[in-house]
Amino acid sequence: MTSERLLRDIEFIVELDKMKSIFRQTTLIDKSRRENDAEHSWHISIMAMVLWEYADEDIDLFKVIKMLLVHDLVEIYAGDTFCYDQKGNADKKERELKAADKIYGILSEDKATEMRILWEEFEEMETKEALFAASMDRLQPIFSNYFSGGGTWTKYSITKAEVHKRIAPLEKSSGELWEFALNLIEDAVERGYIKP
Amino acid sequence: MTSERLLRDIEFIVELDKMKSIFRQTTLIDKSRRENDAEHSWHISIMAMVLWEYADEDIDLFKVIKMLLVHDLVEIYAGDTFCYDQKGNADKKERELKAADKIYGILSEDKATEMRILWEEFEEMETKEALFAASMDRLQPIFSNYFSGGGTWTKYSITKAEVHKRIAPLEKSSGELWEFALNLIEDAVERGYIKP
Repeated sequence: MTSERLLRDIEFIVELDKMKSIFRQTTLIDKSRRENDAEHSWHISIMAMVLWEYADEDIDLFKVIKMLLVHDLVEIYAGDTFCYDQKGNADKKERELKAADKIYGILSEDKATEMRILWEEFEEMETKEALFAASMDRLQPIFSNYFSGGGTWTKYSITKAEVHKRIAPLEKSSGELWEFALNLIEDAVERGYIKP
Repeated sequence: MTSERLLRDIEFIVELDKMKSIFRQTTLIDKSRRENDAEHSWHISIMAMVLWEYADEDIDLFKVIKMLLVHDLVEIYAGDTFCYDQKGNADKKERELKAADKIYGILSEDKATEMRILWEEFEEMETKEALFAASMDRLQPIFSNYFSGGGTWTKYSITKAEVHKRIAPLEKSSGELWEFALNLIEDAVERGYIKP
């Protein structure tokens, strides 16, 4: 007999397949198509493995990775909200809270709570792990845009001030990565990818 | 000045974007398209978070997840080899070793070694973490095939004996998940998804 607990876990795992059909604004670097939430979550998780040595403080990488694996699950129901979309961001919190009840509610209560706490810590962006995780989440589209020749920056006429604001968590997280990102953004302005 | 070390890390991260264009035989559960390596790697990493409590022994979940995040990187150059393709599997090892030199070689030596050791441990499938990681990797397409109504089992006329052989690491890793998988496979045979 399969336990009720395991059946819920399987239902959750099957539901997560939908992450592969939630598309972000950002494209792949080869510009062939838009990127989905599942592959984005993988990319930033492995980015954390590669870049965590540049964090200014000792961080718990395991926790960072767990946060990154779950950080976008609410988008299965709430959809992806483009970071520079002011209107979409107005009711984002409300939509995502409802979605969190739905997706985490599939799991047994203790497991739902554990996962949801990780997501909430990520969203609040206060702990050093949440700041580093947010930095990975925000750095990756910078690479996608830069190395694909402009991407969403060019498409939506994004300004340097907007990109700086978006990448702000990195300044509190890693001096070396922050400096690298600033240089890349400066170069992107010079290339005409970002508006001055 | 950006360090040589960080430049290599960025080059590696950018190269990893190609994982999103390496397609597996398995489709998404909604059958809309084939699954790629990046989203597969995410799915099995979060599966490990959900299912690790069913492991028969205490396992290091952090190590399992790191293994799963890197386990398919060699496929950027070696391509995905379908698990039931005997011809493709004959020279798989050789192709993947060459690919490992290339992908991990982008990184600084110490970091390349650390990541490669994770991949080798995964491939050797001897430690309890490698067995659990392999179990996730093999369980996920079972879910995809079952919940999409047959998938690659039906497409390639796969037999029950072949599926049992493929899922064997699970028996050494988790009695409860093994029993669950056997029941699911039995049901899939009854439904005509798998050949008896």
